[in-house]
Amino acid sequence: MELASTNIINTFLHPKSVAVIGASKNPVKGGYRIVNNLKSNNFKGKVYPVNPNSKGKVFGLEFKKSVLEIEDEVDLAIFYVPNRIIPELIEECIKKGIKGAIIEASGFEEVGDKGLELKNKILKISDDFSKIRIVGPNCMGLTRIDGDSTSEGDERGGFFSSFGVFTQYKRGNIAIISQSGMLNGGYLMYIMEKYPNLGFRYSCSIGNKMDLSEIEFLDYLINDSTVNVIAVYLESFRNPRKFIQLCRKAKTIPNKTIILVKGGLTSLGQKASLSHTGALAENSELINAIIKQSGVIRANSFHELFQFAGTFSMMYNTSKNLPKQGNIAMIAGSGGAGTISADLTMQYGLNFPILDNETYKTLEEVFPEWMPPNKFAFIDIWPAMEKAMMNGIKTEVVMNKVYKVILEKSEIEGIFNMLFCSKRFSAMNNLDQIVENVNKAKKPIFFWLIGENDEVQRISNMLAVHNIPDFPCLEELVKNFWILVQESKNKQIKQL
Amino acid sequence: MELASTNIINTFLHPKSVAVIGASKNPVKGGYRIVNNLKSNNFKGKVYPVNPNSKGKVFGLEFKKSVLEIEDEVDLAIFYVPNRIIPELIEECIKKGIKGAIIEASGFEEVGDKGLELKNKILKISDDFSKIRIVGPNCMGLTRIDGDSTSEGDERGGFFSSFGVFTQYKRGNIAIISQSGMLNGGYLMYIMEKYPNLGFRYSCSIGNKMDLSEIEFLDYLINDSTVNVIAVYLESFRNPRKFIQLCRKAKTIPNKTIILVKGGLTSLGQKASLSHTGALAENSELINAIIKQSGVIRANSFHELFQFAGTFSMMYNTSKNLPKQGNIAMIAGSGGAGTISADLTMQYGLNFPILDNETYKTLEEVFPEWMPPNKFAFIDIWPAMEKAMMNGIKTEVVMNKVYKVILEKSEIEGIFNMLFCSKRFSAMNNLDQIVENVNKAKKPIFFWLIGENDEVQRISNMLAVHNIPDFPCLEELVKNFWILVQESKNKQIKQL
Repeated sequence: MELASTNIINTFLHPKSVAVIGASKNPVKGGYRIVNNLKSNNFKGKVYPVNPNSKGKVFGLEFKKSVLEIEDEVDLAIFYVPNRIIPELIEECIKKGIKGAIIEASGFEEVGDKGLELKNKILKISDDFSKIRIVGPNCMGLTRIDGDSTSEGDERGGFFSSFGVFTQYKRGNIAIISQSGMLNGGYLMYIMEKYPNLGFRYSCSIGNKMDLSEIEFLDYLINDSTVNVIAVYLESFRNPRKFIQLCRKAKTIPNKTIILVKGGLTSLGQKASLSHTGALAENSELINAIIKQSGVIRANSFHELFQFAGTFSMMYNTSKNLPKQGNIAMIAGSGGAGTISADLTMQYGLNFPILDNETYKTLEEVFPEWMPPNKFAFIDIWPAMEKAMMNGIKTEVVMNKVYKVILEKSEIEGIFNMLFCSKRFSAMNNLDQIVENVNKAKKPIFFWLIGENDEVQRISNMLAVHNIPDFPCLEELVKNFWILVQESKNKQIKQL
Repeated sequence: MELASTNIINTFLHPKSVAVIGASKNPVKGGYRIVNNLKSNNFKGKVYPVNPNSKGKVFGLEFKKSVLEIEDEVDLAIFYVPNRIIPELIEECIKKGIKGAIIEASGFEEVGDKGLELKNKILKISDDFSKIRIVGPNCMGLTRIDGDSTSEGDERGGFFSSFGVFTQYKRGNIAIISQSGMLNGGYLMYIMEKYPNLGFRYSCSIGNKMDLSEIEFLDYLINDSTVNVIAVYLESFRNPRKFIQLCRKAKTIPNKTIILVKGGLTSLGQKASLSHTGALAENSELINAIIKQSGVIRANSFHELFQFAGTFSMMYNTSKNLPKQGNIAMIAGSGGAGTISADLTMQYGLNFPILDNETYKTLEEVFPEWMPPNKFAFIDIWPAMEKAMMNGIKTEVVMNKVYKVILEKSEIEGIFNMLFCSKRFSAMNNLDQIVENVNKAKKPIFFWLIGENDEVQRISNMLAVHNIPDFPCLEELVKNFWILVQESKNKQIKQL
């Protein structure tokens, strides 16, 4: 479901026609890249390149000297021009009846008095943004992804950043709201290339929030059913009360999670933020109170933000039940990894519960006498595999049996797997089939992969296709399960 | 410098002749893999396969029925046989005059009364380990690396794990002592393949410490000048007082760092540890006191252990000065990344200091008027690059100038770099040359790389060759700088 077209954010994320002001034939210019992105990624709306200094065509589209030369209606203007000429161009946009403008340049309030003057001009021209709404300045534009880059024709259509030309992307259930342009630029491209199975729906670089802010975008994305996960980076809160309200509303929607990285938590971060977005220092206790009351999942870095977003994305894609208690079983092939995982599990307030008699007996059958299974849900599976091999039984029979008995137990809400990846082991066991079976359960299954590089990569890709997360580090694995429990608790509280 | 040959650990790490008891012609057996590792990796000493049930040869070496059949002297016996037959074989080893034995099987004290009986038999036969010293049981053997796997002939010679056949390895300054066999098995192979520039000297899987423990190995490695970094995983402390003494001694050696992961910190971890190594629960306050008094660098997971080890390894390889105060400059191309880094930097007790006037003025020259540099050591370099491009100046001129002015300041002890990796950018700047120049300074230079996957990988490899660490996550980058400051403080205290 797309939102009512009356919502102003629709103009920005679903425009029917776009004027690119500052469009260029020069490939190193952002104004060229925006047109390139729109055309080569098959944006379905109309595109008008505008530049009084350019003649002829770019991507087959004729340059206009001004938006006033465009005959058809225009929804949105994207500005890729220096700050000082923007006020007069905004005036032309208003005259043309354009409803929204994205300003990518910086040099407004954040750089001092001269910039503030420019902002005040725009305020006056737009009659306090009643005549036109603005995203930015100092932003990297907006991205909407309608289909995968591997799709054909119309399916693919999107709407992209000025940073570079997107050639690899996948549509999915994650949306980004960011006060750092990087998250709709280099970092997003990097993540999309590195994790080709991770899918995105929107990325909204909101910049310095001269007019529209996280509030309007959050409101829109919470109500957009194509979005399950909203990953947010903020350097300042526009309206803490409204932010808390919106986040709480999201808690009442079963398949909606908001994750936040807040920059400017420390005095040093605030200094950096002031130079970046002009955001004034916020009291750190106030920030903590906002985060606590809003019940968002908190991330400490961009890496965590995208890792958490990926985990929730996969959980929602496969309709997994979020764990309520934090009871996990771990299946491993190393006692040391089991010990460290147990420590981390307990440190994060999770647990490997005691096994009931029936489960224990079933496990006991597949384990050798000289190394019986544990009485609690940490299963060092190696002795059982060895026993099978000695008895000429396929090891995958043992693996399937262990998974089955564990997954049947309702008190166990998820599985941690440590897997040594080698071609020999994969050939011995029909791992792909095991994974497919195991994933039918509505419980989160997390993997920690080590072993031969190529095989680690192959299995990681295979798991990603099945929406099963894997982690390079046990602490990240435990932390990512812990956030599922957090979110489940948050949702219970808000639904009371 | 190798240690005096009287040290018992020399027998284990530098044996001149080895008997592999349980050697096999069957490639799926550990006894085959041990011989394979020794021969195919060009172990310089003599190797004797021993197995009463095998005839003929393995890797061109004739099977012996017993160690008593071997005519020459044997230093070390490696057992890859079931637990119950080990005592009588130990008796033969003693008769043969063998000084050391590695027991890889489990099934002793850690599995209860029957296993304890076996241990007591060995105690009696060996006269409380006075006639033969033992590493294990339940371990993955020992690895010594004399040269890189890419070297020719004798250079390469090593001494390896039973887990698998090592085909890719690099000699370096890291040694491992581990109560988890994984760290001399699958995990080590994985790390060596994933980070081919990371070099190791020894990996010692000490298992359940029936006789020799972390104490003897630590003592040996602290005094071995080929080792700078000792990465330790323990589930129990054999002798806390001695452990603290040894770690403190290491603090007096300028290029020696010990990093510890302790398993069994929580009651759940202790339960897992009991089933793994038979280690009894240790009081968590006692553990914390031991770690604090020993002044080791503490890691929370295997991932952190190897990441920290890699960072210290590179610092020692290039004789970098460990930062004393934690004053860093950050050079980035994104304000958002700068803000997050500043927060993390301050949260870890580090700082981006205020720039002096002279430095500021030099920076001011390369920055555009509309976006002057910060007054403190967070340099968002993008505006300066843009100015250079507009003026037809090569961007690498700007980069070199910024690095130079920062590196000249004695109060700045290191640099954090955020780098967007793209083929276009690399072509524009002679990045390899910049890196080589920058790395001449005796200050740690850390990179955070994002961008095109192939280019990220290429630059990461290039940095590793120069012993410059890069991190996939800003928090890891900051944390790894923080441990350098920790170690520097530790060393100062111990040297008072």
